[in-house]
Amino acid sequence: MKALSILGSTGSIGKQVLDVCRWNKNKLSVVGLASYNEVEDMLIQIKEFKPRMACLAIEENAEELKEKVNGMTEIVSGAKGLEEVACIEEANTVVSSVVGSVGIQATIKAIKSRKNLAIANKETLVAAGSIVMNEIKKNKVKLMPIDSEHSALFQCLTGEKLSDVKKLILTCSGGSFKGWKRAELAKVKASDALKHPTWSMGAKITIDSATLMNKGLEVIEAHWLYNMPYDKIMTVLHPQSIVHSMVEFIDGSVMAQLAVHDMRLPIQYALTYPERLPTRLESLDLTKVKNLEFGKIDSETFPCLSYAYEAGAKGGTMPAVMNAANEIAVALFLKNQIGFLDIERIVRNAMDAHKIIKRPSLEEIFEADSRARKKAEEFLVKGK
Amino acid sequence: MKALSILGSTGSIGKQVLDVCRWNKNKLSVVGLASYNEVEDMLIQIKEFKPRMACLAIEENAEELKEKVNGMTEIVSGAKGLEEVACIEEANTVVSSVVGSVGIQATIKAIKSRKNLAIANKETLVAAGSIVMNEIKKNKVKLMPIDSEHSALFQCLTGEKLSDVKKLILTCSGGSFKGWKRAELAKVKASDALKHPTWSMGAKITIDSATLMNKGLEVIEAHWLYNMPYDKIMTVLHPQSIVHSMVEFIDGSVMAQLAVHDMRLPIQYALTYPERLPTRLESLDLTKVKNLEFGKIDSETFPCLSYAYEAGAKGGTMPAVMNAANEIAVALFLKNQIGFLDIERIVRNAMDAHKIIKRPSLEEIFEADSRARKKAEEFLVKGK
Repeated sequence: MKALSILGSTGSIGKQVLDVCRWNKNKLSVVGLASYNEVEDMLIQIKEFKPRMACLAIEENAEELKEKVNGMTEIVSGAKGLEEVACIEEANTVVSSVVGSVGIQATIKAIKSRKNLAIANKETLVAAGSIVMNEIKKNKVKLMPIDSEHSALFQCLTGEKLSDVKKLILTCSGGSFKGWKRAELAKVKASDALKHPTWSMGAKITIDSATLMNKGLEVIEAHWLYNMPYDKIMTVLHPQSIVHSMVEFIDGSVMAQLAVHDMRLPIQYALTYPERLPTRLESLDLTKVKNLEFGKIDSETFPCLSYAYEAGAKGGTMPAVMNAANEIAVALFLKNQIGFLDIERIVRNAMDAHKIIKRPSLEEIFEADSRARKKAEEFLVKGK
Repeated sequence: MKALSILGSTGSIGKQVLDVCRWNKNKLSVVGLASYNEVEDMLIQIKEFKPRMACLAIEENAEELKEKVNGMTEIVSGAKGLEEVACIEEANTVVSSVVGSVGIQATIKAIKSRKNLAIANKETLVAAGSIVMNEIKKNKVKLMPIDSEHSALFQCLTGEKLSDVKKLILTCSGGSFKGWKRAELAKVKASDALKHPTWSMGAKITIDSATLMNKGLEVIEAHWLYNMPYDKIMTVLHPQSIVHSMVEFIDGSVMAQLAVHDMRLPIQYALTYPERLPTRLESLDLTKVKNLEFGKIDSETFPCLSYAYEAGAKGGTMPAVMNAANEIAVALFLKNQIGFLDIERIVRNAMDAHKIIKRPSLEEIFEADSRARKKAEEFLVKGK
């Protein structure tokens, strides 16, 4: 029996994690839940899954929740509460599906408490990859990716040697604006970007998909997950999002993982590995899909992907800075306070202004992160 | 160091096996060679690879060869010679790349001599699958597939459990006459069929690809190699022949193996497994391939594939009969003695006329095989 603490349980991924728990009641139990401020959703989840502990980040929401639940579930709040849920004794696996870099501290605490990790939160590895991977090694816990691309890579690497890898090939749908020109992109609104062609996801990741920053974050994540130099991590346009990623080996053989678009598949794989269990999903029928297209990614129109390669290769605090600036920029764009192309400008400005610390401590990463956020917010005042 | 005996060294696959040996001189040596009647080709191979023993099936060709080589390589002939090469003490791996059912006896002898097998010859498993697989188990030797489809399945299954397989999915190029109507097929000549769209192969297999019998033989082979019931073995049309086959697992995840069209890749994999070694082949560039198409196989126009499913499911001597009749029919078609659609008629007639022996001995398989050949040859006299 795996006992889960789910950080970010009311988000898009969190809800699908709970679906997988419903499918596998005899294999997966829920002992901890954490969310930002969703009182009603959390209340429903608590009634169904009866966790030992639940956290809402915002204290007044937590207070409200506390009044509504009867004593079975302990309600905690704030960053400290999140860490408590991450380290709860009954859990053996922590699912990190919070959005943004807020989950880093709790995730590291979970590793130090010897919890295995299933990680959907990209920012943890992007901003603090070296520290997180060191802790994972030191504490001998397992790290399973939930992202469909990294789950695909994991499955392609099953039974293979990392030293036999020629390259990792991440597929990329191209996002909501594939094929658009920069003049058109200058005018788009958040509502346009939120119509993703193949995946239904949270708002932040949908915008990141549109700028291709999402693919950039995934490249950095793949670097850490599979200890792979950046020149061995490629990206390829694949609009249908059926091939979730591929690995080319030194002999020229390419292994690919394909599936319907449903995050519950990689979630279940991450939570039940090394077991594969039946899912209630439709089979992939390639005779209905008919065509799998591949092409080059237009990184001139969408420069964020190359910014991510650059940040990853420069290393140290640079990926954290890039990520922090991007988080602020996306939030501003979602509030219609900046244009779509301003996202990349804000990221570029933050990276240009940053002096890298080569082997940063967690504190130095957080400092760089918060300076980058301030710098990014200045964009509203100063403009480009 | 693997020491190879290569049965069928002057054919299309055999020559590519030798190419792989050239690439990996420090890993692969050649101790035995066997061919049908190719004196000149065999002489060149003997000079280059200096095997301990070489065989030509036709005695007078063997005599001619004997006069041309100096004493280093022992020259043998006939079916007995083929078995000697298959069982030669110095060999630890036997490559079976002969065409047709002629290789069965020698292959079984090799297994009994505890040689590992790398098998390109489909007919061995099709005609004598139960006996061959039993001997492999009993003698604890390894069986590696060389066929690109079965190599793909093997690679998709690496690190996975056979009990987690929902289905094996064999891809099929569709052969030379994909999309043709039966009225058109009635008129085609061998020379038309020999223009395969994606693979350059021997004549027999190219015709088998055009009738889809090749895919049928592969279905039966997959049944034996992976102990998979026929209702879990699917086929899908994939004209580009880039995805060499796929495995769907019970969770809905599909693993696929992709590569350029070059048999030297699966050959090397079979000969160096579990090691992957660099090859001199081009990388697969999906941005150049652009499109991977998938569709349903037209099994009404090309009924041989369903005949193979039927023969496989009926079991016993039936697959041997189907295969024997097909060998004769293809030979007659290649000599322009029958029409393209007569191939399927000859196979159908042989299957209809056959009374299955459920658990046949090898002798009973050979008897059924030879009766089916006679029955097939009667077609020339009696017609349909």
